[in-house]
Amino acid sequence: MNLIEGGVTAPKGFLAAAGAAGIKYEGRDDLALLVSKEPCESAGTFTSNVVKAAPVLWDRRIIREGNGPVRAVVVNSGIANACTGAEGMEICEKTAEAASEALGISPEEVLTASTGVIGMQIPVDKITAGIRALAPALKDTPEAGTAAAKAIMTTDTVRKEIAAKTVIGGKEVTIGAMTKGSGMIHPNMCTMLCFITTDAAISKEMLQKALSADVEETYNMISVDGDTSTNDTCVLLANGLAGNPVITAEGEDFDAFCEALRAVNTYLAKKMAGDGEGAEALFEMKVTGASAKAQAKTIARSVVSSSLVKTAIAGHDANWGRILCAMGYSGAEFDPEKVSLWFESAAGRVQIAKGGRAVSYSEEEATKILSEKEVTATADLGEGKESAAAWGCDLTYEYIRINADYRS
Amino acid sequence: MNLIEGGVTAPKGFLAAAGAAGIKYEGRDDLALLVSKEPCESAGTFTSNVVKAAPVLWDRRIIREGNGPVRAVVVNSGIANACTGAEGMEICEKTAEAASEALGISPEEVLTASTGVIGMQIPVDKITAGIRALAPALKDTPEAGTAAAKAIMTTDTVRKEIAAKTVIGGKEVTIGAMTKGSGMIHPNMCTMLCFITTDAAISKEMLQKALSADVEETYNMISVDGDTSTNDTCVLLANGLAGNPVITAEGEDFDAFCEALRAVNTYLAKKMAGDGEGAEALFEMKVTGASAKAQAKTIARSVVSSSLVKTAIAGHDANWGRILCAMGYSGAEFDPEKVSLWFESAAGRVQIAKGGRAVSYSEEEATKILSEKEVTATADLGEGKESAAAWGCDLTYEYIRINADYRS
Repeated sequence: MNLIEGGVTAPKGFLAAAGAAGIKYEGRDDLALLVSKEPCESAGTFTSNVVKAAPVLWDRRIIREGNGPVRAVVVNSGIANACTGAEGMEICEKTAEAASEALGISPEEVLTASTGVIGMQIPVDKITAGIRALAPALKDTPEAGTAAAKAIMTTDTVRKEIAAKTVIGGKEVTIGAMTKGSGMIHPNMCTMLCFITTDAAISKEMLQKALSADVEETYNMISVDGDTSTNDTCVLLANGLAGNPVITAEGEDFDAFCEALRAVNTYLAKKMAGDGEGAEALFEMKVTGASAKAQAKTIARSVVSSSLVKTAIAGHDANWGRILCAMGYSGAEFDPEKVSLWFESAAGRVQIAKGGRAVSYSEEEATKILSEKEVTATADLGEGKESAAAWGCDLTYEYIRINADYRS
Repeated sequence: MNLIEGGVTAPKGFLAAAGAAGIKYEGRDDLALLVSKEPCESAGTFTSNVVKAAPVLWDRRIIREGNGPVRAVVVNSGIANACTGAEGMEICEKTAEAASEALGISPEEVLTASTGVIGMQIPVDKITAGIRALAPALKDTPEAGTAAAKAIMTTDTVRKEIAAKTVIGGKEVTIGAMTKGSGMIHPNMCTMLCFITTDAAISKEMLQKALSADVEETYNMISVDGDTSTNDTCVLLANGLAGNPVITAEGEDFDAFCEALRAVNTYLAKKMAGDGEGAEALFEMKVTGASAKAQAKTIARSVVSSSLVKTAIAGHDANWGRILCAMGYSGAEFDPEKVSLWFESAAGRVQIAKGGRAVSYSEEEATKILSEKEVTATADLGEGKESAAAWGCDLTYEYIRINADYRS
């Protein structure tokens, strides 16, 4: 299995296009179209927020309640189509109908997704006109995938796409993906928006199984600001063009698929955390020596969600007491007096605490380690053999600037 | 019942003193001593954090496990005595012994509390020398109470003290209190540090009952940054000097006491939220029309804890979608399509949403309302008659500045 450059158009038979529909932003692409030449099996995970955006309700119905194929996804940035009532659902319908007409497929084969401001109605005519303009421009090139990955960005500063190749049943299988997410990121089901394509042949049941397990260890382990979005959506489409024997059960082939999926989603989850609004550093929290996996995950996630830890990272400050504090209020049990702690980055590794107390270390060395672009803290609980990692970012002035006047 | 100016020395028989012990800060008071002329019944609530500071363990043992009287409290700022292992507990012991010798009381009658940096040992000689210097300076004046309230501050910008007078069994009863808290505030039992004194005569059992119920509606309903401290402590001391018939059961007298206690703690909880690190505004979230009290509290608390809501308030931006979003991920169930929302302040009141969707309103008017020093959002769930309020603050550049280099 290898990670490779590329995105949603890397697997066989997927095409993409992007353009400027003028929904809210000016002078940039804000509409992306993703289409498979062949019908796809689909899997999806969605926000756990009680307030669910209209496209989340639309996609969930098609993927979770329906059994039919999926052929296309329409994504817009600028307006989230959340808190928009019945009119919001009508916008999803009209979007799917426009794609249906432009592509010659059924509206039930079209997924929709939106990201941006909540509580504002989308000018649907701009979406439908945009779809008609994009349909003839669909291409299976890397450039088309990249254009789509850019069009779905909001406050993201870098596009997020990756692909992986593996071999299943003697056939080369590719997985490609694009995500967006920078603010309102504390996924609880899946991340803000993530679209994964694959040419693997796999049953709908096994596809959902692979995705559901994977997001628990990837997108559900990142946090930018603790706010679980109304729009979180992660969709995985499989068109079967790789020609591998269809994966219908657990086993070697399923494991190979899951391994490649994990590599893709881990890469993108970290990319998303590191590109958190205003972030200057990716912060990884590893918990080792735990007696249970759930305990390790709860503690790791609590630490990357702490405003005080995040500001300490922004200040390159080895304020390890804040890490112990955030571990302590996580809700997981552990013995503080057994905890050892290290900071680590490209600049080195230093032990900070042992048995819940500070050891003698150089603040200067710690500050140097914490001044890198990617920083890891490891807490060993001294209890057992389980471990987990979570990813977040530092909290900077820039986060405030971005969010204090996001709508204006 | 009236709120009056004053603090911990307002009730009969309580004395205070403060001084500069040079624990960590320079050029300011960092040690406070609070003493009752008569033995006190005591009640306390403490942090739910698994990592508990040494003074929390010390006080909890005396108040919750012991049955003896309490006579004195020693509080220092600068270093929190958290994550300090066995040495931290020894510091509590030596502190209590020093107060015991200086005041002629038992070490078991001395509570201790600390606030400041975590993970650093307190130079205990400075504490013991400070206690010896302060003991002869103890006074029952308002100025002495104020000096104590100032000495326990860390990043607080204003001191927080208040008192209330009421009549119980024909006797005038006074309650006085001081609190500190600005960062690492997301109490889950009680606030950072709070010391309440009263001359009421009341049994230990009823004192704890009154305090435990009260903090659920006051200190447990505020949040500055979502970080539940290792040191949260709320202590209530009653010396009985008011001469009222001892309160030993529920009834009119107990209700009068609770009413005054609620007034004192609500005042201070709001004061603490409004003085959150870097805060420029107090943000109150009211939830009405709920079908259950717990539902209303969960939703209100989730909203004041949201980084995105807090930055919107900092930007005077009526970004109501973020409020709906934070309500939605609170964990409480409700129907988004029944929610109505208003913003309100000294500058007026405006309805923003009805039935989960925006109504037509003036952004200019909303911005004017959101530019005041105290801002309230009210969400009506349209379900029932229960309600709750929570208090937080806006999230500003200043919060980052304070916390990115707090230790230096």
